[in-house]
Amino acid sequence: MSILCVGSVALDSVESPFGKAERVLGGSAVFFTAAASYFSPVRMVGVVGDDYPRAELDFLAERGADLSGIETREGESFFWAGRYHHDINSRDTLETRLGVFAHFRPRIPDAFRDSGHVFLGNIDPHLQHEVLDQVHRPEVVACDTMNYWIEGNRKELLSLLKRVDILLVNDAEARQLADEPNLLKASRWIRERGPEIIVVKKGEHGAILFADGWAFFAPGYPVEAAFDPTGAGDAFAGGFMGYVAQSGSLAADDLRRAMVYGSVMGSYAVEDFSIDRFKRLEPSDVTGRVREFREMTAFEALLEESRV
Amino acid sequence: MSILCVGSVALDSVESPFGKAERVLGGSAVFFTAAASYFSPVRMVGVVGDDYPRAELDFLAERGADLSGIETREGESFFWAGRYHHDINSRDTLETRLGVFAHFRPRIPDAFRDSGHVFLGNIDPHLQHEVLDQVHRPEVVACDTMNYWIEGNRKELLSLLKRVDILLVNDAEARQLADEPNLLKASRWIRERGPEIIVVKKGEHGAILFADGWAFFAPGYPVEAAFDPTGAGDAFAGGFMGYVAQSGSLAADDLRRAMVYGSVMGSYAVEDFSIDRFKRLEPSDVTGRVREFREMTAFEALLEESRV
Repeated sequence: MSILCVGSVALDSVESPFGKAERVLGGSAVFFTAAASYFSPVRMVGVVGDDYPRAELDFLAERGADLSGIETREGESFFWAGRYHHDINSRDTLETRLGVFAHFRPRIPDAFRDSGHVFLGNIDPHLQHEVLDQVHRPEVVACDTMNYWIEGNRKELLSLLKRVDILLVNDAEARQLADEPNLLKASRWIRERGPEIIVVKKGEHGAILFADGWAFFAPGYPVEAAFDPTGAGDAFAGGFMGYVAQSGSLAADDLRRAMVYGSVMGSYAVEDFSIDRFKRLEPSDVTGRVREFREMTAFEALLEESRV
Repeated sequence: MSILCVGSVALDSVESPFGKAERVLGGSAVFFTAAASYFSPVRMVGVVGDDYPRAELDFLAERGADLSGIETREGESFFWAGRYHHDINSRDTLETRLGVFAHFRPRIPDAFRDSGHVFLGNIDPHLQHEVLDQVHRPEVVACDTMNYWIEGNRKELLSLLKRVDILLVNDAEARQLADEPNLLKASRWIRERGPEIIVVKKGEHGAILFADGWAFFAPGYPVEAAFDPTGAGDAFAGGFMGYVAQSGSLAADDLRRAMVYGSVMGSYAVEDFSIDRFKRLEPSDVTGRVREFREMTAFEALLEESRV
């Protein structure tokens, strides 16, 4: 089943202890699509400036992504520059220039309006609302957001949540949104406001899904060659939603698998700059790492009572 | 099989957003034993001052712990006071008074010298060496340490590691010891210096075990009633080593289960002040939470290749 993905299409300049990449493909919609395309066709909606190397996105089209919703506008593309430290989990933002993204008003092409699955990347909740206004009754709406909108446009975000099935946020965002440091309580607070399912992303520590009366934990894969964590959360979302759309189900067993696919795709994202790792990632690599996840987490419980 | 446990026996004063506890039982050996006693008999070695309410340790003896190695000396017991913040994962130390613990020289009673399993709590590596000098060929030696010794007595710590089978540390300590931010590489560095098995504790994020060519991840249980995280890492070590001693095995399947028992006991430790949760914890609670861990992590992998 097709996924409509609305988000940023950007250029990133990244420095890490392992090297440097200048003006390479980035943005939430790009990482999401690179990962999701292993599972489901993606329909991308975004905006780039006339400086964008659109031909470099062609490999996404070869994998079944429809790029016709990416507008080109006069001006500069969204640009982000950052530097990662020796501990690859901490970074400084060196520069952010919104360019044409500052005036982004998502227009959903007619051919995209019947999408069964929608992923609302991290943009103004007002625009996320506008996206939903343009689509016909999607089966599953998933949404990302960030501290900037939680602080600055809380009211609109809360009204959006009523239209969302799955919220994907990081742990700090979940806590901030609910104003509650306990993740379990924070997730319950958020679930009461709309989304049935909360996926809390914790970077290298993995991710946890909270649903009605149950939870599922996917560890972070211990990546040896962590080059560049940029986009890992979006690749997680892509793997997760890609599998949700492929299975066409929100049953617990399918959501569990979706979490593992999310974590697998996030772990591959960090193994190279930009989306480069996905250019040479084979389906057998994906299933191989799923197998490793199973070995890393499966145990046989001996449920006789303990000694005392 | 009996475990010899050498560590601190302390009094803690703790404030958290959920209340206050004054001069309650604390110390690594106490939390370790409270958890390990569900699985194996523990022989405790430590020192307290003449102000210590020893009778309060009696319930550990009722669970099969041998307290005869806890010396009482003239003076004040090791005292720690701390305050946890709204986010229960961050704390300030308000006061530390070493008291009689400052001059602790572990003397292993004759009856303890044949212990098959040894847990060296976080004390000066020089003293950890002395403990090992006093025991006969234990089957398994596990050891904890901290940044203070990694910085201040690195040489002795590295020589100790040659005598250790299992090192239990937190993620910051593992990185600091190996001077390597990547956990997988740090663990390999440490494993090359002695311990076959590294258990990296990550607090609420769970724990990961690195062994020869494989790893196992136990999530942190999402505790709703997180009252007081003091001692959770020691309770983890107790559950882990308690099960290792009970099974008498370092086979992968047993180590996997040990990790889950460690995480279960750590999760219970935080549900009340001091070791109070363990006073009313039933074996069926332990197996119940093991069951929850399995549900929280098990997934059925569909290993046919993905769409693309």
